[in-house]
Amino acid sequence: MEIYIEPLDAGCMKIVEYKFNNMAKPLKSLGKLEDIMIKCAGIFKSANFTLEKKATIVMCSDNGIVAQNVTQTGSEVTKIVAENMTGDKATISVLCKSSGADVFVVDIGMNTDSENTDIINKKIMYGTNDFSKEKAISPQDVKKAIQVGIDMVKQLSGQGYTLIATGEMGIGNTTTSSAIIACILEQDAGVVTGRGAGLSLSGLEHKVSVINQALQLHKPNNKDMIDVLSKVGGLDIAGLVGVFLGGGLYRVPILIDGFISSTAALVAVNINPLAKDFMFATHVSAEPAGKMVLDKLELAPFLFLDMHLGEGTGAAMAFSTFQLANNILQQMCDFKDINIEKYQEFK
Amino acid sequence: MEIYIEPLDAGCMKIVEYKFNNMAKPLKSLGKLEDIMIKCAGIFKSANFTLEKKATIVMCSDNGIVAQNVTQTGSEVTKIVAENMTGDKATISVLCKSSGADVFVVDIGMNTDSENTDIINKKIMYGTNDFSKEKAISPQDVKKAIQVGIDMVKQLSGQGYTLIATGEMGIGNTTTSSAIIACILEQDAGVVTGRGAGLSLSGLEHKVSVINQALQLHKPNNKDMIDVLSKVGGLDIAGLVGVFLGGGLYRVPILIDGFISSTAALVAVNINPLAKDFMFATHVSAEPAGKMVLDKLELAPFLFLDMHLGEGTGAAMAFSTFQLANNILQQMCDFKDINIEKYQEFK
Repeated sequence: MEIYIEPLDAGCMKIVEYKFNNMAKPLKSLGKLEDIMIKCAGIFKSANFTLEKKATIVMCSDNGIVAQNVTQTGSEVTKIVAENMTGDKATISVLCKSSGADVFVVDIGMNTDSENTDIINKKIMYGTNDFSKEKAISPQDVKKAIQVGIDMVKQLSGQGYTLIATGEMGIGNTTTSSAIIACILEQDAGVVTGRGAGLSLSGLEHKVSVINQALQLHKPNNKDMIDVLSKVGGLDIAGLVGVFLGGGLYRVPILIDGFISSTAALVAVNINPLAKDFMFATHVSAEPAGKMVLDKLELAPFLFLDMHLGEGTGAAMAFSTFQLANNILQQMCDFKDINIEKYQEFK
Repeated sequence: MEIYIEPLDAGCMKIVEYKFNNMAKPLKSLGKLEDIMIKCAGIFKSANFTLEKKATIVMCSDNGIVAQNVTQTGSEVTKIVAENMTGDKATISVLCKSSGADVFVVDIGMNTDSENTDIINKKIMYGTNDFSKEKAISPQDVKKAIQVGIDMVKQLSGQGYTLIATGEMGIGNTTTSSAIIACILEQDAGVVTGRGAGLSLSGLEHKVSVINQALQLHKPNNKDMIDVLSKVGGLDIAGLVGVFLGGGLYRVPILIDGFISSTAALVAVNINPLAKDFMFATHVSAEPAGKMVLDKLELAPFLFLDMHLGEGTGAAMAFSTFQLANNILQQMCDFKDINIEKYQEFK
């Protein structure tokens, strides 16, 4: 899979860095807020950008592996929660509404069809196959699912959205994520598997053994991301891989959420390393491998809220951080405006 | 100094905890957002509170110790920045305006008088004495400065403010903070002293030696906070101690900012341990002792932005976190609303 991504615009980054260095404040004293805005300038090829139009893309799909009792709740919950997210009562809905963001709920592979017309129908399959027995998805369908994510970003970018958070809903998707990460990082599943949404300890042991056996069975080639996604992946993850690649293609900053979203981010970077320049870590997931994946990506999160809700909620918490940083960039005055000498930088 | 603080209301905390446990989401999956709202309920003695009216109190004062060359910039900058903060171009102004918060700039001891009528004049002294030679402040004036902070919270609480961030401006106040913390934690100043707003490395060594010599000279009694503040403190810090105590007295959540504000928080807790129940850590300051003080307070910050600007900006970044958590508490639906079974909690 070949995706062409143009690098960050170094000139615009320099301009924003210069602006921050000349603001009436100690040098670099806004820390990561400055880094974030500088990177955004490189993405937008502009030092004068706004982040008013924000969106969360929530990829929803089901996972055949749920048949192996790796989750506390059944697949029927995927659709219920997906439908709930189109309303105003889900956590992601409340967070996005409060942050001036819109939620786009995408059915990329739920088990059943929803009659809710606010769910964007991009279904590739009615749930993946049970990867303890067979490939989860055909390689062709993995590529189709990635294209769904790319196209979503193209569409939203065309509508003027300038900041996109990644979310997902799919019972069983911490199992698929752990399988992918165990494979990519060449770790035993025990190291990268957590309790998802409230699994018991014995349930966790079972989940780990299911993943290890599947990796034994399929031996995915961890230099080939399509092979990995096809053998042990999920459609939601493949869709999010597309969102991250779409960020690079259409030059939109993409916010990483928790473990599942970070997994998609790592897969995207393995497809094209430049995708990393268009993604931002936000919070640290409570799933044990969450931090491990961000470390591998060399992206530092800034929200430590112990959240593990999914839906894109951790990333959505970061909308306000980005907005505040952008407001500072646009509204702060220079030293010359307030008549004090610039702070010197000592190394 | 005796300050009576009534404990948190356990009943209201239980109600909010119950509400979170019954929301349509995995148990405890909102992490610290739940903890924050539960604590707020205990403070407000109510499970139905809003956080619409927010304020930042910025205590501004000068420090005689600046005569000892412990800072990069001169004391004249204190007033310039304080005046700037009453307008709309300072970082704290931009952050507060963006977060629906008001800024209250208090002159609690600047060297010179400001003609800016938006600065609240509560001046105790025209800057403190140079503590390398004499006591910084008389014990009587320390108490007066603490009372200024208490009265500010009383006034704002009376005006309906329900969330207050702490800020400060005073060239030299990382020196006073380090002196206080070295004394309270019984550490060499070298362990708890940083470069403040851009000090050179040789400047840092000098700052450390000035503090160590002053502590030798005065031998403050670290069981007596008035003695410590009097001998090596600052009026801004004493004022913020009052804000934290006022939070306990008038039952308003108070947000800790960076190193200087954390120092005031620790002093307040040493005056009345119950004050801790009314304060919240927000971000981690880049000053080395910032995290050390929060650890001592056993309060966990959640924003890791590498900010070190002062003015209350780190705490102000947390306004949106609190607002979003409150919106979730008010607007999220229960499991019964969306017809799925509650997640079980496994220990």
